Amino acid sequence: MTVVMEVSVVPLGTGSASVSHYVAQCVQVLEDAGIPYQLTAMGTILEGELEELLSLARRMHAVPFSAGAVRVVTTIKIDERRDKELTIAGKIRAVEEKLGR
Amino acid sequence: MTVVMEVSVVPLGTGSASVSHYVAQCVQVLEDAGIPYQLTAMGTILEGELEELLSLARRMHAVPFSAGAVRVVTTIKIDERRDKELTIAGKIRAVEEKLGR
Amino acid sequence: MTVVMEVSVVPLGTGSASVSHYVAQCVQVLEDAGIPYQLTAMGTILEGELEELLSLARRMHAVPFSAGAVRVVTTIKIDERRDKELTIAGKIRAVEEKLGR
Amino acid sequence: MTVVMEVSVVPLGTGSASVSHYVAQCVQVLEDAGIPYQLTAMGTILEGELEELLSLARRMHAVPFSAGAVRVVTTIKIDERRDKELTIAGKIRAVEEKLGR
Repeated sequence: MTVVMEVSVVPLGTGSASVSHYVAQCVQVLEDAGIPYQLTAMGTILEGELEELLSLARRMHAVPFSAGAVRVVTTIKIDERRDKELTIAGKIRAVEEKLGR
Repeated sequence: MTVVMEVSVVPLGTGSASVSHYVAQCVQVLEDAGIPYQLTAMGTILEGELEELLSLARRMHAVPFSAGAVRVVTTIKIDERRDKELTIAGKIRAVEEKLGR
Repeated sequence: MTVVMEVSVVPLGTGSASVSHYVAQCVQVLEDAGIPYQLTAMGTILEGELEELLSLARRMHAVPFSAGAVRVVTTIKIDERRDKELTIAGKIRAVEEKLGR
Repeated sequence: MTVVMEVSVVPLGTGSASVSHYVAQCVQVLEDAGIPYQLTAMGTILEGELEELLSLARRMHAVPFSAGAVRVVTTIKIDERRDKELTIAGKIRAVEEKLGR
């Protein structure tokens, strides 16, 4: 079954308050992997098999180190259901239906 | 200055694995307040003055209790910059520009 | 009823990977307020009335700005039950009892 | 280098607002693995090599499913420094020293 995962990668002590170039390199990891994802203002949401997503999250966590950061705090949030398939679009649609959209 | 905030409201012990109807009622709080927000598959992202957003997050946290839940875990993530204005669209655009979109 | 809340305050772009002096100033806010709290390796856990804790979390979020940071990401996690009182010690004891301790 | 990780496992729709027995089984996974950990009121904090901790977090995430839950939301927060070793005790001591304890 697919799971939905949110990943947020935050480098510390980089001397600049901007982190968008690190985030762009993290998103590139997902582009190269070719999995469905949603870039949001507070993280990136992935959809796929849990093992694959954990491995991608692990690589996203490493991105700022290769760009010179010495400390990274990464938050990974997994949503998994075993009674039905979870997808990014399905989770949003379930809420929007209840809002009458 | 505006801040960007992510809110995720999770009721526990409701007897159903589905939470979309609670999330829809949380989103209705934001619709009624008329502030910019982005519904994602892992939470809802708000934009505005910190005090207003904290008060809206507080009301979103209370929604499942009015719908019968007895336990709620709510995660509020605040991103605030004092050197420039943060917006939902601006944060996404900053990343997309670096991806050459 | 009391709630239990975890607060994690992370300043970005400070030029140093160390954040312990910011965290210490955040903990001082709680010391001065005289509420029960547990300092952990990944955040600080508070116990009290929700309104009071949100107000303290708000002041903790502001600490790094007064110490010169220009960007702060603060995560606030609220655990509230309406069927029984939640305390820091009670939540830990409930798990330890099941571990036979 | 060791990293410090916080794991919080939340089963949804179990029909009971109490989750301590799931948390106790998650902690047992760490007991059996013999790694340093700190049980807190809002999660469990682990210390060790990132690969080992991700694998343990993966097993903790699976615990509620084996106990009958059909949906689980797990939050994993990684703190890694490449300029010095991070430990649970070291991170707490760094803050307490600044508080003059």
